[in-house]
Amino acid sequence: MKDKYILLATCSDKVGITSLITNIIAKHNSNILHLDHFTEYDSDQDSEGKLYLRFEFEKVDTLKQALEQELQDNNIEFELFDNSKKTKIALFVSKEDHAFNEVLLRVQRGEIPAEIVCVVSNHENNKHFADAFNIPFFHVPSTQPKEEVEQKILDICAQHEVELIILAKYMQILTDNFVSHYPNQIINIHHSFLPSFIGANPYKQAWERGVKLVGATSHYVTSDLDEGPIIDQDVTRINHRYNVKDLRKIGRHVESRVLAQAVELHVQHKVIVTEGNKTIVFA
Amino acid sequence: MKDKYILLATCSDKVGITSLITNIIAKHNSNILHLDHFTEYDSDQDSEGKLYLRFEFEKVDTLKQALEQELQDNNIEFELFDNSKKTKIALFVSKEDHAFNEVLLRVQRGEIPAEIVCVVSNHENNKHFADAFNIPFFHVPSTQPKEEVEQKILDICAQHEVELIILAKYMQILTDNFVSHYPNQIINIHHSFLPSFIGANPYKQAWERGVKLVGATSHYVTSDLDEGPIIDQDVTRINHRYNVKDLRKIGRHVESRVLAQAVELHVQHKVIVTEGNKTIVFA
Amino acid sequence: MKDKYILLATCSDKVGITSLITNIIAKHNSNILHLDHFTEYDSDQDSEGKLYLRFEFEKVDTLKQALEQELQDNNIEFELFDNSKKTKIALFVSKEDHAFNEVLLRVQRGEIPAEIVCVVSNHENNKHFADAFNIPFFHVPSTQPKEEVEQKILDICAQHEVELIILAKYMQILTDNFVSHYPNQIINIHHSFLPSFIGANPYKQAWERGVKLVGATSHYVTSDLDEGPIIDQDVTRINHRYNVKDLRKIGRHVESRVLAQAVELHVQHKVIVTEGNKTIVFA
Amino acid sequence: MKDKYILLATCSDKVGITSLITNIIAKHNSNILHLDHFTEYDSDQDSEGKLYLRFEFEKVDTLKQALEQELQDNNIEFELFDNSKKTKIALFVSKEDHAFNEVLLRVQRGEIPAEIVCVVSNHENNKHFADAFNIPFFHVPSTQPKEEVEQKILDICAQHEVELIILAKYMQILTDNFVSHYPNQIINIHHSFLPSFIGANPYKQAWERGVKLVGATSHYVTSDLDEGPIIDQDVTRINHRYNVKDLRKIGRHVESRVLAQAVELHVQHKVIVTEGNKTIVFA
Repeated sequence: MKDKYILLATCSDKVGITSLITNIIAKHNSNILHLDHFTEYDSDQDSEGKLYLRFEFEKVDTLKQALEQELQDNNIEFELFDNSKKTKIALFVSKEDHAFNEVLLRVQRGEIPAEIVCVVSNHENNKHFADAFNIPFFHVPSTQPKEEVEQKILDICAQHEVELIILAKYMQILTDNFVSHYPNQIINIHHSFLPSFIGANPYKQAWERGVKLVGATSHYVTSDLDEGPIIDQDVTRINHRYNVKDLRKIGRHVESRVLAQAVELHVQHKVIVTEGNKTIVFA
Repeated sequence: MKDKYILLATCSDKVGITSLITNIIAKHNSNILHLDHFTEYDSDQDSEGKLYLRFEFEKVDTLKQALEQELQDNNIEFELFDNSKKTKIALFVSKEDHAFNEVLLRVQRGEIPAEIVCVVSNHENNKHFADAFNIPFFHVPSTQPKEEVEQKILDICAQHEVELIILAKYMQILTDNFVSHYPNQIINIHHSFLPSFIGANPYKQAWERGVKLVGATSHYVTSDLDEGPIIDQDVTRINHRYNVKDLRKIGRHVESRVLAQAVELHVQHKVIVTEGNKTIVFA
Repeated sequence: MKDKYILLATCSDKVGITSLITNIIAKHNSNILHLDHFTEYDSDQDSEGKLYLRFEFEKVDTLKQALEQELQDNNIEFELFDNSKKTKIALFVSKEDHAFNEVLLRVQRGEIPAEIVCVVSNHENNKHFADAFNIPFFHVPSTQPKEEVEQKILDICAQHEVELIILAKYMQILTDNFVSHYPNQIINIHHSFLPSFIGANPYKQAWERGVKLVGATSHYVTSDLDEGPIIDQDVTRINHRYNVKDLRKIGRHVESRVLAQAVELHVQHKVIVTEGNKTIVFA
Repeated sequence: MKDKYILLATCSDKVGITSLITNIIAKHNSNILHLDHFTEYDSDQDSEGKLYLRFEFEKVDTLKQALEQELQDNNIEFELFDNSKKTKIALFVSKEDHAFNEVLLRVQRGEIPAEIVCVVSNHENNKHFADAFNIPFFHVPSTQPKEEVEQKILDICAQHEVELIILAKYMQILTDNFVSHYPNQIINIHHSFLPSFIGANPYKQAWERGVKLVGATSHYVTSDLDEGPIIDQDVTRINHRYNVKDLRKIGRHVESRVLAQAVELHVQHKVIVTEGNKTIVFA
């Protein structure tokens, strides 16, 4: 497979945008391999529509600069990725290993095209998993003042040129200051089917309500806890035989795959966050 | 297939209950065809356990009275059903026909072993579906005072010896008085994956939150709106291409099958409501 | 919503095709609302790729002829649909009503944008459902020679300008001659998860093999029985408690929704059949 | 939680069996915690029915011998397990790590109540995963004559008192001789939704047929390849965008969870294999 560029673009919808972009790509003799074009109009009002685009096309050296210039000239917001360059990930984890290992193993297996450049944890029990793949592990206990803890972690991330932070059951709440360094670049796994059971101990809440399915939600982290844009969700069927401990167990499996799926979608540059706190997922 | 009895029983858990019941059944030369025995202990406290039982066994004439006596003598709550006797259902519906038709057709097809004895609606548009199967249709408009409306409906139900009321998108809130006539005998379909999106217009709420699955919940109606014991739930996957209208459409399919499933479970006598506002479903 | 055109197009993949098409659309001042562009290359060989396209764009009177000319000049296979024009459907059914009613009710409810112009059956028991919506019902018994039977049906379809035939549990095998009149325009529902359990009595076969899921498959009808291009499939979980009769019952629900889904996809012009006997479904 | 016994029992169905067993348990003052009683009658013939039973009840020392005597006296086939004794598992794996790691991690996490006593592989690349948990790893290359290879492996299993062998993508076919040492004690994961795509390269077959779901099947190994009793199956949705490599990737996730689920069910003593080459799964 030849190297590819991936373009994510957003703008107010109007006639001719996709024509404009495909023309430049064709002019530079690059072939388009995939293209998703999605428009959204508010059905209730006569407001302006939005256009969301994702292109995959052959990498041609002369093309990049010309394309970027054209997009800028037309006030189109965009990100252009070279798919030969893997996203650098920092995996954050506390004691529980399941979501952490799911992401770690899928990346190591080549299923998720990314590079895990460091692991950060407030515990030491998962160090040996990182060691097995020679990934730098940083133990940053949560016992010190939060400001110091976060500064240490920010330094580690900066040093490793981290582009995406995965909270794989990292059970510390990040401050707004921390989050502001990585806008739409921190993915969390929440152990419920949001917006159900916001807050502490969702599996206990689920058991008490007697629901027949439990789920998990992966989302970008924003300053509003549990309110960030949802990337993926899934559920699994339960019945009256499941006690709270059983729900936690079966929930771990859903959490693991919903987080791994979100990471894969993000590093394949298939996700656009909208102004409405939602995601467009070109899956 | 011979006729069967179905026994649902609940009591404090202790040694020997199932032995007691199986002995009587065996003594009367009836064969047990299915038996579910489920105990639940609160894991956090040292409290008393609860025992939930469901038996299917051959109908033997001499057995019924002896069994009922024994259960009473041992303070076991129970219901004993003769499976040759079909549950009499009243279907309540407003304008939307989907959940109504799903239940109606499954019953007529013999998939749900029940008898629809009447249809009650505050609109007339679904009358022809009832007419097609010669089921009495009662148009009770909601324009009169609620007390009068409900009294009319209660009279209709009494007259038809209704044992189960199905709210198949009946968009009127029932009063506590009405509900008290049919404890755990009214099944509603709620158009969200409860406890998400309680209240009005759940599909609009779901669209605004950007969830990736929408669902439906069938539950017994209690005096607390949307808080009754859940019988069944299911979800379906959506994506950013679905607008609110699309969610309503795909949601109708989930609503239909989740309601029909609950009705089938109930009339097969597979559901026990617990003191904890939950259901045991011996599916 | 304004009227729209929907374009399905296929050609050998090369640089510039999408640019060409979007240019014409833009030139005629029509806005693109959705666009799917999918290329497929055989990973094992160095062969030519194929390009599959689906566009939704605003209807502009001057555009149609110019676009068609350009596509022809470039040897692009295509179909251009006006979404204000509903597909004319003939529903074929035998005794079982479930799949038939699912499609019928979804169309009548406006969920599937199509028009059912006639119902054809070798039995009379489902006539009243067609009558309820004033849809012409034709009873064509299978007792006569097949050639005569099919000619009668072909005449009915021609007379009603049928564009799509739905075999909603129509239990007669169509001849190659019949099928050749409606290439990729006949949709069947097969009562198994193909290619499992080809042939007679799939639910009995499934029960005997002890599978834990049963399914259904909707596909275009070709001259090879059960081998046509698959449009949609789904499964449902079962367990040892299900006997063959139970499998048939739960299977009916899967069959109904898998057929209705295929019909919806087809009439929304979201399906392209490839040379490889497969479907591209732009869902 | 007190220690428990788990009883699996099978016999010809007749009046009084469950009464007999519950009486003995009650007499020894042991409380039944769960009980599943399932009868199966061939609906087409007037043949004898079969009774399948699973009990969980409190461990009482005096009970075991009396119960076993009674079951033998009544010609009831049974297995009696002490749930404080964990099943000893040998994990067999070739190069691919996904199913292997899924089982390994769930066992180490305490989610599957078992003990992995050894790992056997015809490759060395997964050794470090076993080492991390101090599990003996045996590299038995497949380059030697099959008879010798299998004898070596049988010796290893005997030495470690192995009770269950898991073929976690072990890509060597076992001889009938080997299999005969572990009847219904070898679990394999097959990379298709059986009986679809039996034989080599099922994902390529699936891609060529254009199916819309791919699946995996866990089953007991018998002398008929891919024909053993099915324990669990699951599927995942795909579309035209998935090439064969993508199917293999997404298939690995289904394979992993379907195998782990089967292992969990087996070691919880929830599976009975019937004479009809099927499983009763009391899940």
